[in-house]
Amino acid sequence: MILIAAIACSRGVEAQLDPLSSWNDTAPKKAIVDFVQRVTKEGSADFVKPEDRIATFDNDGTMWVEQPIYTQVTFAIDEVVATASQHPEWREKEPFKSILAHDREAMLKFSIQDFEKVVAVTHSGMTVQQFQEIVKKWLAEAKHPRFKRPYTECVYQPMIELMQYLRENKFKTYIVTGGGQEFVRAFAGQTYGVPPEQVVGSMGKVKYEYDKEGQPELVKLPEVLLIDDKTGKPEGINMVIGRRPQAAFGNSTGDQQMLEYTGSGGGARLMMLVHHDDSKREYAYGAESKIGTFSDALMTEAKKKGWVVISMKDDWKTIFPPEK
Amino acid sequence: MILIAAIACSRGVEAQLDPLSSWNDTAPKKAIVDFVQRVTKEGSADFVKPEDRIATFDNDGTMWVEQPIYTQVTFAIDEVVATASQHPEWREKEPFKSILAHDREAMLKFSIQDFEKVVAVTHSGMTVQQFQEIVKKWLAEAKHPRFKRPYTECVYQPMIELMQYLRENKFKTYIVTGGGQEFVRAFAGQTYGVPPEQVVGSMGKVKYEYDKEGQPELVKLPEVLLIDDKTGKPEGINMVIGRRPQAAFGNSTGDQQMLEYTGSGGGARLMMLVHHDDSKREYAYGAESKIGTFSDALMTEAKKKGWVVISMKDDWKTIFPPEK
Repeated sequence: MILIAAIACSRGVEAQLDPLSSWNDTAPKKAIVDFVQRVTKEGSADFVKPEDRIATFDNDGTMWVEQPIYTQVTFAIDEVVATASQHPEWREKEPFKSILAHDREAMLKFSIQDFEKVVAVTHSGMTVQQFQEIVKKWLAEAKHPRFKRPYTECVYQPMIELMQYLRENKFKTYIVTGGGQEFVRAFAGQTYGVPPEQVVGSMGKVKYEYDKEGQPELVKLPEVLLIDDKTGKPEGINMVIGRRPQAAFGNSTGDQQMLEYTGSGGGARLMMLVHHDDSKREYAYGAESKIGTFSDALMTEAKKKGWVVISMKDDWKTIFPPEK
Repeated sequence: MILIAAIACSRGVEAQLDPLSSWNDTAPKKAIVDFVQRVTKEGSADFVKPEDRIATFDNDGTMWVEQPIYTQVTFAIDEVVATASQHPEWREKEPFKSILAHDREAMLKFSIQDFEKVVAVTHSGMTVQQFQEIVKKWLAEAKHPRFKRPYTECVYQPMIELMQYLRENKFKTYIVTGGGQEFVRAFAGQTYGVPPEQVVGSMGKVKYEYDKEGQPELVKLPEVLLIDDKTGKPEGINMVIGRRPQAAFGNSTGDQQMLEYTGSGGGARLMMLVHHDDSKREYAYGAESKIGTFSDALMTEAKKKGWVVISMKDDWKTIFPPEK
């Protein structure tokens, strides 16, 4: 018994001492540790001053589950249902009609324009603060259909550890997401330890107005300012961060330009792609998937440029954090 | 001699000990120190967690001289002259013709549209990095017409001290300027100690492209994304910072909404306006000025809401830092 306790204890200590304890000792973990040692070693050619250490992380499919459908789309659909009583006209109007009829077949055929209509009505007309409250309330109640746990617990434990490890090494960690900036800000603090000013996302216009009591407020409009995906990622990074990241993490073709932009700076850089190849513990998808497409061209590019491809199956000991 | 040395020495120590040594012991300095003590005192009702301490500063007229004309406008005019040989058509085309003829009378009558044309040609068509190099080169050479020193030395020493004092008290200090975001980023690090990600400004679109060698680059386009002035200030703060500042500093009607937005949050807040009433050491202007307008309505609003008005004449011991 004492021996078992001692082993358990030493394992606990080991886990505590290893900031990347959910990573197997394979190439990706070695690449991370090697990169951090190089940029933090004073006097080395690759040394980067603490204030210049910027790391950017995609969200959907890189930090949390994006299958079978993006979480924010599920949120928008749920919101249409939740607010339908205020919109009797939706009963006869597509795409709302199909959503309210729970017509999965029709919803799978929705066009980009259909989704834009759904996002427009569910993501505008309220203040930024009110919107974030709606998101928080939804996240507190909604559960992932397969994993039966809140979406904010369907996050990847190894990536959370990676973020923390980088922060311990003086990196500023940013989320750079195709998802809505205000949507992700609603949970990034609590879930990732990332404050609102370090969330770059797709942005809608806001309007400064006064409420009935004359108090100022910022109201969300249904106009798009930036789609923070593909070329929009380096553009969004420039708007909000204003400098090139030292490290970037993604999982799909939507992240290619962010990694490319990061990699084209001088000195030591780290670019990594999460590859979903673990249907047992999570999902397996790639070139053929509409959500989180990992094209063959992206795989070729990764090999050519030395971007590290993370196999969820082989490189991660665990996928999710322990249940709360 | 020993006595004099002792006095000089004690004065040196006093200046060192007082982080706001360029401020007279009048109401504004007391308001600053009182505010900082309240928000940093753990257990107090006004305590603000270090990570939530955000302070925003306007630039033109708040951090540096904006008379007789905004520095960025002088830059744009100088750039038209500097690049005229590449644009023979400008010789016959307004507003360029007047600029190239150094026709001050005509330039004083320029419309907003004229200035937009000048800004468009001088602020787009190059990469973000190239633009910042152009700005840096100009700032290294140009001098203020009256003070005969570089524009980056025509900054207000008391405001620099205020920024540093807030940072020492764990505030993140942001520039929130109607000026161009990339223009201000080019010098904010060295001049204010404010990194690129803490500069919110008027934004133009950028486009992610590849140069001849296939290297990615961000090219500035002549399209406006945000005019970071008046209601644009809280809107820009929301885009880049995503939360309400705890303190805000401005000097003109362009800052009114930023101060209003800041003040409408709960707890201790500090809102201050620099009033230019010192024609001897700097400039005296207010309601009648086209640049940095301090309207009577703004003064009324400041009194009503308890915003602190800083008299440059009475509240500042010195205006500029010592010459380099």
